[in-house]
Amino acid sequence: MTVTGKLRAAIVGSTGYGGVELIRLLQGHPDIEITSVISSSSAGAPIEEGFPHLTGVVQRKLDGVDAAEIASRADVVFTATPSGVSAKLVPGLLAAGLKVVDLSGDFRLKDGAEYEQWYKHPAPPEAYLKQAVYGLCEVYGERAAGVDFISNPGCYPTATLLGLIPALEAGWIKPDSIIIDAKSGVSGAGRGTSLMVHFAEMNENFKAYKINKHQHIPEIEQVLTDIAGEKVTVTFTTHLVPMTRGIMTTMYAGLIGEHSEQDLVELYRNYYAGRPYVRVREPGVVPATKEVSGSNYCDIGFATDARTGRVTIVSVIDNIVKGAAGQAIQNLNLMMGWEETRGLGYTPVYP
Amino acid sequence: MTVTGKLRAAIVGSTGYGGVELIRLLQGHPDIEITSVISSSSAGAPIEEGFPHLTGVVQRKLDGVDAAEIASRADVVFTATPSGVSAKLVPGLLAAGLKVVDLSGDFRLKDGAEYEQWYKHPAPPEAYLKQAVYGLCEVYGERAAGVDFISNPGCYPTATLLGLIPALEAGWIKPDSIIIDAKSGVSGAGRGTSLMVHFAEMNENFKAYKINKHQHIPEIEQVLTDIAGEKVTVTFTTHLVPMTRGIMTTMYAGLIGEHSEQDLVELYRNYYAGRPYVRVREPGVVPATKEVSGSNYCDIGFATDARTGRVTIVSVIDNIVKGAAGQAIQNLNLMMGWEETRGLGYTPVYP
Amino acid sequence: MTVTGKLRAAIVGSTGYGGVELIRLLQGHPDIEITSVISSSSAGAPIEEGFPHLTGVVQRKLDGVDAAEIASRADVVFTATPSGVSAKLVPGLLAAGLKVVDLSGDFRLKDGAEYEQWYKHPAPPEAYLKQAVYGLCEVYGERAAGVDFISNPGCYPTATLLGLIPALEAGWIKPDSIIIDAKSGVSGAGRGTSLMVHFAEMNENFKAYKINKHQHIPEIEQVLTDIAGEKVTVTFTTHLVPMTRGIMTTMYAGLIGEHSEQDLVELYRNYYAGRPYVRVREPGVVPATKEVSGSNYCDIGFATDARTGRVTIVSVIDNIVKGAAGQAIQNLNLMMGWEETRGLGYTPVYP
Amino acid sequence: MTVTGKLRAAIVGSTGYGGVELIRLLQGHPDIEITSVISSSSAGAPIEEGFPHLTGVVQRKLDGVDAAEIASRADVVFTATPSGVSAKLVPGLLAAGLKVVDLSGDFRLKDGAEYEQWYKHPAPPEAYLKQAVYGLCEVYGERAAGVDFISNPGCYPTATLLGLIPALEAGWIKPDSIIIDAKSGVSGAGRGTSLMVHFAEMNENFKAYKINKHQHIPEIEQVLTDIAGEKVTVTFTTHLVPMTRGIMTTMYAGLIGEHSEQDLVELYRNYYAGRPYVRVREPGVVPATKEVSGSNYCDIGFATDARTGRVTIVSVIDNIVKGAAGQAIQNLNLMMGWEETRGLGYTPVYP
Repeated sequence: MTVTGKLRAAIVGSTGYGGVELIRLLQGHPDIEITSVISSSSAGAPIEEGFPHLTGVVQRKLDGVDAAEIASRADVVFTATPSGVSAKLVPGLLAAGLKVVDLSGDFRLKDGAEYEQWYKHPAPPEAYLKQAVYGLCEVYGERAAGVDFISNPGCYPTATLLGLIPALEAGWIKPDSIIIDAKSGVSGAGRGTSLMVHFAEMNENFKAYKINKHQHIPEIEQVLTDIAGEKVTVTFTTHLVPMTRGIMTTMYAGLIGEHSEQDLVELYRNYYAGRPYVRVREPGVVPATKEVSGSNYCDIGFATDARTGRVTIVSVIDNIVKGAAGQAIQNLNLMMGWEETRGLGYTPVYP
Repeated sequence: MTVTGKLRAAIVGSTGYGGVELIRLLQGHPDIEITSVISSSSAGAPIEEGFPHLTGVVQRKLDGVDAAEIASRADVVFTATPSGVSAKLVPGLLAAGLKVVDLSGDFRLKDGAEYEQWYKHPAPPEAYLKQAVYGLCEVYGERAAGVDFISNPGCYPTATLLGLIPALEAGWIKPDSIIIDAKSGVSGAGRGTSLMVHFAEMNENFKAYKINKHQHIPEIEQVLTDIAGEKVTVTFTTHLVPMTRGIMTTMYAGLIGEHSEQDLVELYRNYYAGRPYVRVREPGVVPATKEVSGSNYCDIGFATDARTGRVTIVSVIDNIVKGAAGQAIQNLNLMMGWEETRGLGYTPVYP
Repeated sequence: MTVTGKLRAAIVGSTGYGGVELIRLLQGHPDIEITSVISSSSAGAPIEEGFPHLTGVVQRKLDGVDAAEIASRADVVFTATPSGVSAKLVPGLLAAGLKVVDLSGDFRLKDGAEYEQWYKHPAPPEAYLKQAVYGLCEVYGERAAGVDFISNPGCYPTATLLGLIPALEAGWIKPDSIIIDAKSGVSGAGRGTSLMVHFAEMNENFKAYKINKHQHIPEIEQVLTDIAGEKVTVTFTTHLVPMTRGIMTTMYAGLIGEHSEQDLVELYRNYYAGRPYVRVREPGVVPATKEVSGSNYCDIGFATDARTGRVTIVSVIDNIVKGAAGQAIQNLNLMMGWEETRGLGYTPVYP
Repeated sequence: MTVTGKLRAAIVGSTGYGGVELIRLLQGHPDIEITSVISSSSAGAPIEEGFPHLTGVVQRKLDGVDAAEIASRADVVFTATPSGVSAKLVPGLLAAGLKVVDLSGDFRLKDGAEYEQWYKHPAPPEAYLKQAVYGLCEVYGERAAGVDFISNPGCYPTATLLGLIPALEAGWIKPDSIIIDAKSGVSGAGRGTSLMVHFAEMNENFKAYKINKHQHIPEIEQVLTDIAGEKVTVTFTTHLVPMTRGIMTTMYAGLIGEHSEQDLVELYRNYYAGRPYVRVREPGVVPATKEVSGSNYCDIGFATDARTGRVTIVSVIDNIVKGAAGQAIQNLNLMMGWEETRGLGYTPVYP
């Protein structure tokens, strides 16, 4: 019950970067009130102990993970947990009548076997994989209206898919030619410490990792296959950039027919007409990651090459906003039938 | 004239970091509408040409600097110009009936001779130096109500003064013992290119500059002298940190009498009671710059040392928000008689 | 004349990053003595004025650019000048009997018309384009022995070519399938200031630039075409990473036949046997840029993908060492008939 | 026994940053051969597994910690271990007839009680505290000749003491007025992972830590007291800078008498005459950390202030070279009666 008339939201995984960003962004939402910030590992502790930047911003104590208790306090739950945790938690939350936006990745793949192959642990029950709506807002937004359960896309897939889908759907690029070279700020690796992201090892360094093995590969292929109407397999490389926020995916594909940069700009602007969070740059201009930092934008630009017959597509997002917390709120807006921009009007922080 | 009923604001210097931050922050203000973004150097050009992150956020064309034209479009002007420019521009804006919040530094010193000694060019007319209210909100906020002309404090002085004033006013620290070791992110040097802030020179580097010569020294001393009731002279060093945003001032002073960290915390919390943008940390805890990044907070912490009889005070702000654009909006709120937090509820961006 | 019996070296362009790195590296060379550091823009000034790190390391005064004067003081000249300057300077130096290692790029392309198309200014006389030996040491090293004039490879081409040549020469990859996604530290953009590499703009940012337009494209294609025996055209993208040093090229190609990562490791280790500056990683392991920082190494690793039939090759260098000054010294060693490692035994600086 | 005639060196703690830097620097030493790299935690593993940058540089397998075994393979041992480990290890190494340069900090304080107060664990036996020569080369270098056991100074004390001693010894600064504001690159925190130095937390951040509590305080005071001939107590603050290498100490002291910047430059240049690793800048010029990066230099500059009667002294070093491994080799050179510069001629890596 709420005295404000606002939708009451709980955040599970409030001590990860996705959870903390939900807290930041939701401060600006006129129709949502955070009523519980939840952490299995730090329950009982004041949140500002681990996150002093939140001093005076939200309630002091972290709650534990208990579906019934959550249901008594909230109408909607964002589950920003590690992979494998949501798989166990979400069925109970749905059963308790809560709306769920899951950021964990556990419910993105429709095929449990594929999940187990890439994620290396047991898949959630198939009924939930089927029920979950894949919340790539600018592509499948209309499917979100009124549903109870959204699976929020991964950070890399968001930048990648928004950059590829219009051209693929139009039949302008060869489905079997797609190569995705992705680069991410280090916050994408989460808050768990490791030598890989130890400051002195990662600073002034550029690293490739999980080449051809990243769990976002089947997620990307599942959607591209859906769009293309034929099986699409991609080459996908991930790199860590010595910065905190931001993803750029540089994508390569063979063109079918002749299409200028101007043609591509028009195709994409038409495709994304009315969707303010995708901004398509002028012909010959590509975006940099800082141009969307702290905001829910995905910016896209093109370079074609007559010499090779290929197009290079550059897509950037803030991995924690459009790649996680921001798109999750956008999805909730769509579930509720609100404007998708509600509470998300954050201008990029520049410089 | 405005159809929205909102206060119409113009920003002079819209292509500097302070001006661009005003644009970002004002997007969230319910009672202010930006009606003109002005740049003498780039008039006529679309603002997103130089700042692609603003694509779709504000009007496309930059206006030129003309007082009459500004007055026809706006009720209030933020002048975020280089030093020396505001000195010439502001009298005309005030004469045209506009409210002015000046971020340039030209009107902070009450003594024109001192201005010329530190700024190395002619001072503005004395009448304007007298008229300008020094807008350190948490200290002089009540002076801002209803006035037409505010001089917004410098970035270093803001962090420094908020960190020193309660102890100095209470007579707990020796006025002649104050040493201020200040560190700033590189955005504080502005958008003008130079070898000093060339990426390859500044990255992985830590530099001291303008030791004992920074023009913020007389500004700090003017206020501390006012508070102490005796002439205060400080030692002040500025450094550049290889990061974009944030200022930390580490301040040293000899204690008068015995005061524990707990005492200091209580003194400061009392002093800043009801002022939400100053957050005083628990005893023994000091803030880091990222904990206020993107927000209007100034966070303060203490360490006392019985061995030396000195206190170390650590104060952090985001130099472009609380140190410039954020405090300017806070000042406008106070001028208008609004809540000082209006439109400034930005949670720090973390990580 | 030299009293030490060492080879006397002059460096033209001593105030650029390539020139300054030559000064650093040559301090450790037992058989070379720097007798003149030359800068057209700063002649007469002490070098430590612009580069305080060189205080006490080399002579104080910069010399002007004069071929006769250089010839009176030096036996060999490194020309680390902007493109277009070497084109005019080198003929005179060669005529004066000096050995020349040119780092400018002016003499890398054999075809003057192609030079003008990509570099956008007039090509050097064709005789010099023909005379210049392209000094990719591990591939064309034997051609360097005894010659007077070496054109030192570009930074991107060095990392790219060393990573592609063994597989291409072996016929294991499809020549028309090559896509090169290159990332460079910002020092690669040189010491000239611009908004592009202004600290506050480039820090916490990742940018693509000159897509399909970089002047290193024809250089790469010229060599790959030579190796493949057929015209090779590549897709090539360059990005700036918010770090100072380092290049990674992530390269994609379709495999001809089945080749495991182990096969590739063996192929490359055989190809580079006896060449200590190329280090091939274990199967499944790819290098990061910091692992070669400050050194002359090029490290290479592989990931194959049975799903797509493509191989991903990762190659890293320090852009200022192996990509410029280090390889230039390696070339001089080969010209003189010395061990190629002479004076280049720098262990990577880590972390 | 060695066939090369070189001094045989073992490095205990070869998987920390100090140990790894010893490996790098010793590659350039003409009279020392590394015969054993030792790690208690990783014994048996190839060193390049954890440090791929060392591929092909040193022996592959890490040895375990055994005094007798070390003595059979080496003449000298560098102990770059965590505090508390050397305390137990060094007595056995000395007993086995080895020369020891200890980088751990365990033998720097002469007073065991003070050690326990600041280090929070038991002190080494007093005989060893007495025996250890404190190896601040430019001040106590003559004490090192011929001894078997050197305690290598801490990183912060090295920068601090070299910056203060000449003025203190000359009686130009007030001993009770010294305030040291120190800033360090993050490598100073070592290779152990923690949230404090997690990339996403430390990047774009500036942090103060251990204010008035750092274990380097008694080390600094012990030496300053020795120099001044009276008890000196200092205020000392440490900060972490978002960069990997480098320390700057900004030091404040009240002047006794009038001394210009020129006077100070002369005083320091006289004091450090013949000591090439201290470089004193021109009057009014202060050094930045990058100007010594990768090298054994300590650069010093001054700013005096007639308004306050204080001097500001800025001192910079590379924390891992002059602040650890470089000074350790310099000490070994002095122990052996060699030139102190032997094998240490590394020009700073710039940019």
